Amino acid sequence: MEKYFFTYEDIHKTSKDLADRVRASGFDPDVIVAIGSGGFIPARIMRTFLKKPILAVGIAYYDADDKPCELPRKVQWVEEAEKKLSGKRILLVDEVDDSRTTIEYCVRELLRHHPAEIAVTVLHNKLKAKKGAIPAEVKRYFAGRDIEDRWVCYPWDALDIDEHLASAGLALVGKK
Amino acid sequence: MEKYFFTYEDIHKTSKDLADRVRASGFDPDVIVAIGSGGFIPARIMRTFLKKPILAVGIAYYDADDKPCELPRKVQWVEEAEKKLSGKRILLVDEVDDSRTTIEYCVRELLRHHPAEIAVTVLHNKLKAKKGAIPAEVKRYFAGRDIEDRWVCYPWDALDIDEHLASAGLALVGKK
Repeated sequence: MEKYFFTYEDIHKTSKDLADRVRASGFDPDVIVAIGSGGFIPARIMRTFLKKPILAVGIAYYDADDKPCELPRKVQWVEEAEKKLSGKRILLVDEVDDSRTTIEYCVRELLRHHPAEIAVTVLHNKLKAKKGAIPAEVKRYFAGRDIEDRWVCYPWDALDIDEHLASAGLALVGKK
Repeated sequence: MEKYFFTYEDIHKTSKDLADRVRASGFDPDVIVAIGSGGFIPARIMRTFLKKPILAVGIAYYDADDKPCELPRKVQWVEEAEKKLSGKRILLVDEVDDSRTTIEYCVRELLRHHPAEIAVTVLHNKLKAKKGAIPAEVKRYFAGRDIEDRWVCYPWDALDIDEHLASAGLALVGKK
């Protein structure tokens, strides 16, 4: 089973495409909420096109001893002082929609702040049976690309970025 | 005056180099604090090598009407529930040390949480007169690269990533 190797340039283009589609749908977010740490990079790129502030939330499935947890745990959340999400249009950003558990968890938690609307964007949606569900309050869901249920190698996880490019069948060369 | 054009691959390598130097210095952070939004991408890459959780803080120099402010404003901060920074070793990450104002501000705010130590890393340090100063409590400061005081074009700000690569004198090509 082959892995997917996405380059930063792929991620940049997919993030731009997502931002374009969000805007084309008529959704004008007040704030981008990045689900950390996978959502940080697509959220930052989408900010270039949407020009909106980013709030970060950190979600982990591991406890302090690095043992897997049954439920997601908040590493960081939008703080008390920032509970200005009431009545706001939120664009939630993550890298991959795998089991959908994290996204459902974040949407449900954000709904407690009574936003006007939450739209969800992910770079990649794995076509598979999902454990979580997108709450009915979410009317807009955008996946940059639907992919098979294979291992995804993101560039930011590469120990050697040149090898990562090579695995994607690419190389960065000087222009003459 | 020429601009700097850094590619994502440059940023990845510089972030890896910074993580290596942080570790080689004997500093083993408990937590990475990313200064948003410029610090998100280097922090996420450094996490690959340091394997530590990221907390994000958002700092802006613009008010709600997009008018420049005299002082930095917190867009997001480490929340009450996460005031576990006491006694912790914090690695603060930003993309560029320009006037040094943001870094000084963040270090001073973080010091109020009584961490064991704060180390500072930036991808690029502009060699220029600084308005801010690194507080004396910071014993470790790492700049990926010292650069001249020129305009820096980061890849995540590119409207067209292929043009950005071309401006850096590079192109991504398929390997035969």
